[in-house]
Amino acid sequence: MGSTGFIIISIVTSLLAFCLAAWLYDWVKKQPSSNSQILKVSSYISQGAATFLNKEYRVLAKFCGVVAALILIFIPVPIWKGSFLLNLQMAIAYILGAIFSAAAGKIGIAVATIANVKTAEAAQKDIRHSFLCGFRGGAVMGMAVVGASLLGVSLVFLLTDDTTILLGFSFGASSLALFAKAGGGIFTKTADISADLVGKVELGIPEDDPRNPAVIADNVGDNVGDVAGMGADLFDSNVASMAAALVMGAALDQTMGGSKNVSMVFCYAALGLLASIIGVATARMGKNDNPTFALNSSTYVTTGIFAILTAVATAIFGLEWRIWGASIVGLLVGVVIGIASDYFTDDRKKPVQLTANASESGPAFTILSGVSYGFVSTLPALVGIGLSALISYKLCEPLGMDYALFGISMAAVGMLSIVGMIVSNDAYGPIVDNARGLAEMGDLGDDVLEITDSLDSAGNTVKAITKGFAIGAAGLTVIALLGAFISEVNVAAVEQGLVAVGEKYLNGFDVMDPAVFFGMIVGSAIPAVFSAMLMLGVNRNAQRMVSEIHRQFREIPGLKEGKEGILPEYDRCIELATAGSIHELIPAGLMTIVATLLVGFIGGVKAIGGFLTGNIISGLLLAIFMSNAGGLWDNSKKYVEAGNHGGKGGEAHKAAVIGDTVGDPFKDTAGPSINTQITVVSLVASLMSGIFLMFSLL
Amino acid sequence: MGSTGFIIISIVTSLLAFCLAAWLYDWVKKQPSSNSQILKVSSYISQGAATFLNKEYRVLAKFCGVVAALILIFIPVPIWKGSFLLNLQMAIAYILGAIFSAAAGKIGIAVATIANVKTAEAAQKDIRHSFLCGFRGGAVMGMAVVGASLLGVSLVFLLTDDTTILLGFSFGASSLALFAKAGGGIFTKTADISADLVGKVELGIPEDDPRNPAVIADNVGDNVGDVAGMGADLFDSNVASMAAALVMGAALDQTMGGSKNVSMVFCYAALGLLASIIGVATARMGKNDNPTFALNSSTYVTTGIFAILTAVATAIFGLEWRIWGASIVGLLVGVVIGIASDYFTDDRKKPVQLTANASESGPAFTILSGVSYGFVSTLPALVGIGLSALISYKLCEPLGMDYALFGISMAAVGMLSIVGMIVSNDAYGPIVDNARGLAEMGDLGDDVLEITDSLDSAGNTVKAITKGFAIGAAGLTVIALLGAFISEVNVAAVEQGLVAVGEKYLNGFDVMDPAVFFGMIVGSAIPAVFSAMLMLGVNRNAQRMVSEIHRQFREIPGLKEGKEGILPEYDRCIELATAGSIHELIPAGLMTIVATLLVGFIGGVKAIGGFLTGNIISGLLLAIFMSNAGGLWDNSKKYVEAGNHGGKGGEAHKAAVIGDTVGDPFKDTAGPSINTQITVVSLVASLMSGIFLMFSLL
Repeated sequence: MGSTGFIIISIVTSLLAFCLAAWLYDWVKKQPSSNSQILKVSSYISQGAATFLNKEYRVLAKFCGVVAALILIFIPVPIWKGSFLLNLQMAIAYILGAIFSAAAGKIGIAVATIANVKTAEAAQKDIRHSFLCGFRGGAVMGMAVVGASLLGVSLVFLLTDDTTILLGFSFGASSLALFAKAGGGIFTKTADISADLVGKVELGIPEDDPRNPAVIADNVGDNVGDVAGMGADLFDSNVASMAAALVMGAALDQTMGGSKNVSMVFCYAALGLLASIIGVATARMGKNDNPTFALNSSTYVTTGIFAILTAVATAIFGLEWRIWGASIVGLLVGVVIGIASDYFTDDRKKPVQLTANASESGPAFTILSGVSYGFVSTLPALVGIGLSALISYKLCEPLGMDYALFGISMAAVGMLSIVGMIVSNDAYGPIVDNARGLAEMGDLGDDVLEITDSLDSAGNTVKAITKGFAIGAAGLTVIALLGAFISEVNVAAVEQGLVAVGEKYLNGFDVMDPAVFFGMIVGSAIPAVFSAMLMLGVNRNAQRMVSEIHRQFREIPGLKEGKEGILPEYDRCIELATAGSIHELIPAGLMTIVATLLVGFIGGVKAIGGFLTGNIISGLLLAIFMSNAGGLWDNSKKYVEAGNHGGKGGEAHKAAVIGDTVGDPFKDTAGPSINTQITVVSLVASLMSGIFLMFSLL
Repeated sequence: MGSTGFIIISIVTSLLAFCLAAWLYDWVKKQPSSNSQILKVSSYISQGAATFLNKEYRVLAKFCGVVAALILIFIPVPIWKGSFLLNLQMAIAYILGAIFSAAAGKIGIAVATIANVKTAEAAQKDIRHSFLCGFRGGAVMGMAVVGASLLGVSLVFLLTDDTTILLGFSFGASSLALFAKAGGGIFTKTADISADLVGKVELGIPEDDPRNPAVIADNVGDNVGDVAGMGADLFDSNVASMAAALVMGAALDQTMGGSKNVSMVFCYAALGLLASIIGVATARMGKNDNPTFALNSSTYVTTGIFAILTAVATAIFGLEWRIWGASIVGLLVGVVIGIASDYFTDDRKKPVQLTANASESGPAFTILSGVSYGFVSTLPALVGIGLSALISYKLCEPLGMDYALFGISMAAVGMLSIVGMIVSNDAYGPIVDNARGLAEMGDLGDDVLEITDSLDSAGNTVKAITKGFAIGAAGLTVIALLGAFISEVNVAAVEQGLVAVGEKYLNGFDVMDPAVFFGMIVGSAIPAVFSAMLMLGVNRNAQRMVSEIHRQFREIPGLKEGKEGILPEYDRCIELATAGSIHELIPAGLMTIVATLLVGFIGGVKAIGGFLTGNIISGLLLAIFMSNAGGLWDNSKKYVEAGNHGGKGGEAHKAAVIGDTVGDPFKDTAGPSINTQITVVSLVASLMSGIFLMFSLL
């Protein structure tokens, strides 16, 4: 079967995923909901989320318009060299990438803001039913994300048969992810921190108290940050990993003849989605009533199904077993990284407990302890990523040097194969978190709160694993993108007549080359500066929001006292967080792109290779550090609240709360946005490779 | 003139530095001191410092004994291959490296614990005299460090004419630095944090109150951390930069004939020392009574003298102007990095002020703001290091490719040329800090305290610049060491018959080579884990010390009330901090060495090249981040204490104190120790290069 066959299979599988998503959506919608108080609050949340998304998408549309225009003129080849049609295809692919990802995000938010109500109400019946509402709500997002990403990649490749155009599609997805993940991250933490600061700390009213003007913004934040943001992040990684593998696979096919390698990428991606479909469709909570177990076991089942299905396909279609091995190595390492992340953020393990213990000596020790364990936690994850790259390379090396790099990209595809399941589990978190808030605001009683608390806690635990997975996958993907960048440079060099056909302009990047070294050392600062800009953005935005909350409590009579019928102006807070998050995000995004262009125009393609390498190294380090330290502080606070070291209200608790507040933008704004930042930089580099070859100082 | 002539000039210059040191020592000693209370306290401090150094040197002696034995058996060539004499020379050079550095540290501590008394007493007369006592005390250390390092390098090279043996000397200096810097860093912060925690926070007694059992340990810590530790760190960097330049220079001389490049290294190093001698001898506080200006202007004067002297020497001896240019580029970039560090830690600039402002919203915002600005501060420093490497390479490239790398190493030599002045300024800080404490404990009155406060504040400001300088220098040095590593591998490969004479086994390290990539990604985790181990060590050690302080207040009757004649058991605290710091340091040191060996034996020399690169990138990033964030928090606390945002005792102050406590181990333990850690790893790699070539898995 030729590659077209596999592409059609991919398209069919992604349509299957959409069918499952539609069925799940319908199922969730059909679940009963009757509590009018909850429905009212939930309508605020869904309206708020819509406000944010609409505003975000409007700004994004302008941004994409400008970028698309630039692409039309310059990329991949300046238009005055007669490449209008090519550039037009690229611009369209770019816009499609953003639209596909945005559509998946829109679907996810739509179902999440229904599923939260259903989950809260189902908790009145029993935990198993409530779990299923939460999980299936999340699974709609999972299916939509993976379905849309595979469909988009398949269509673009089928129509253009040009992998460079595919990088344009990927860049569109990255642009969306930058807005969705970093913008949503700023939004959610602005709302979370300000709601806590005024509500819990100043006024002493409980979390999710409807008097708090920021409470709806906080719930909206869970959705736009964790559902839409995380979905866009994984959409981006998934597309980028496929695009990188296809760039290298197509180059291999061109040299070797045939279409075996391109076929393999589509085959594995389709089977990964199929495995996720089966995993999602069969997920249930067993009799032991343990939601964490249910979520994790469905992940492991999906992993197993993927391994078996791909082995069967490899045998049937006579694909390379060594490459199959590489993708399985990627998948296994993803699981290992997830488990390691779990160790550093689980409250039954030492790091969280020792940090809680250190909190007894005051907040400075909470911070020092969390920073230290966060630093230590980078070791297993980085060793895992390094080993998987090394093993998959060595495994595929006997097939030829070019296959070795292709092997790394297939390890990334393998790691991301179960991304449908990962997104489902991840979107489950904010849904049940929201459900808990709704149960509180709708006065559903302590029994229901107990159930939603237990579902919520499972969401937090699983989140550590899925985040570790996302970072590991991003790590391998960007390595693969580095390979794709070299491919692109070599293609452009032949077109520009810098080398003869069949020859290579670049084989790799020598650390001892000063341009590479310069790029590397500058590149390593970028993720740090990017995270700093986002965190300072949260700081500034939260200060604005705190003033607004103060104003409402001051100016709305009866609000503080909780007078019947008096409601705060929720929408003002939501608008403020929305406007602020976009305002704070844009300089950070532009900084990374401008830095890439500067380094490229100064040092040329070699400096850019170093720049990407520096970005990858420091980006992975900081992303893992911040995600794990943040998760650790969060759970260490919960550990104290569970009655350890003096419990709620004690000195250790105060210190732990400070740790948690520091950790919030670490784990939900800066840490996970770094993935997207690296992908954006990698894709800009690949797309600009021809231009950098033409114009650079050195 | 041949290289022997220049070596003899270097030896003469270093003897001149010793003469100046002796004269300054004598001058400081001759200054009057009469206050018996101060003398008593000061004797505690000098005894405490001696206790620490003796214990540290004893443990270090055992450590060095073991390493020397291993060197004798294995390095550079296993002894069964008939290399006994060579290995013996290497082992002796290693031991000498440690002894020379230790001797300089011993001298520095000896004078610092006298100069503090003289500075305090001189403050009763006037600020200019008091400044001179502090500065000249520090300058003894400066001269001793640079004199001993240049003398050692010159002697070893003169006697053996073998640059590999020189790396052994450098490794000895690094081993000492690891103990002195990281061990001293743990000691000083253990004492500082516990003294503050029990004294200021729990009991509300002032800083430097003699009732506090940890107060002497705190003062001892300033000396062992900042005088001995920083001195050993810069001794290490200085030796390593010369060694790296000599390794490459000698290799060049061998190919080209003559001894021009080796001569140049000695010539510039000697002139750098001469410039520092002139700068130190002429430093005075001008009529405007501004100590910061006096310290900084003597640095700039030294810089100018170095530039002129080397230009004259280059003209007279017909040296290469391009290489002169490279060393001046290094020097200038060092100054620029220092100024950038100053921006992020100066309380007249925005970052410190905005962090103080954020403190009004609570400690979490102090931390987030400091972390963010710390991240941003990495950009100018890293761009500076990257640019200086790029420019010095490009400047020397026309002389031939091998000269290009030599150019980078000469940029490092240039940056470190004024290290005598840097160490003098740096050692000035703890002397005047101690003097402030002694003035407080000796009841010298408010006028004297005002003078010592102003001297102390100048010390803190200048420290930011010298630290930036030290990090920049370490950055260029380790790049040069990477070049030295390649040289060593190539020499070993010829000896082992892997390549023919005149051919190269390695030219560089390709990022896309999976062994390099694997090493790089693992290497990037090491500085993070190393800093985490040191910080957790401070945490644990401080907890032990706090219990000891509590015990003393509980068990010694009359201590808390300040009864006449009742003194705490100062020595118990000092012993505890000493034992704890060494206990906590050893695992961290072993971890880095074991990780290097593991990566080397698994991935071979290419993986080690990647490992060093990863180490350099993440190490520089974290070192700059932690040093600057720590300095920023420190000064932001002082800014609040100066009466801003509610001043001392307000909510913002409490938050700022928490930031300062977090920053303490950042800036005085982990941050600056990373330099040493990278150097140790680089030297282990170079020394083991032959072994890794023989035995490795891949």
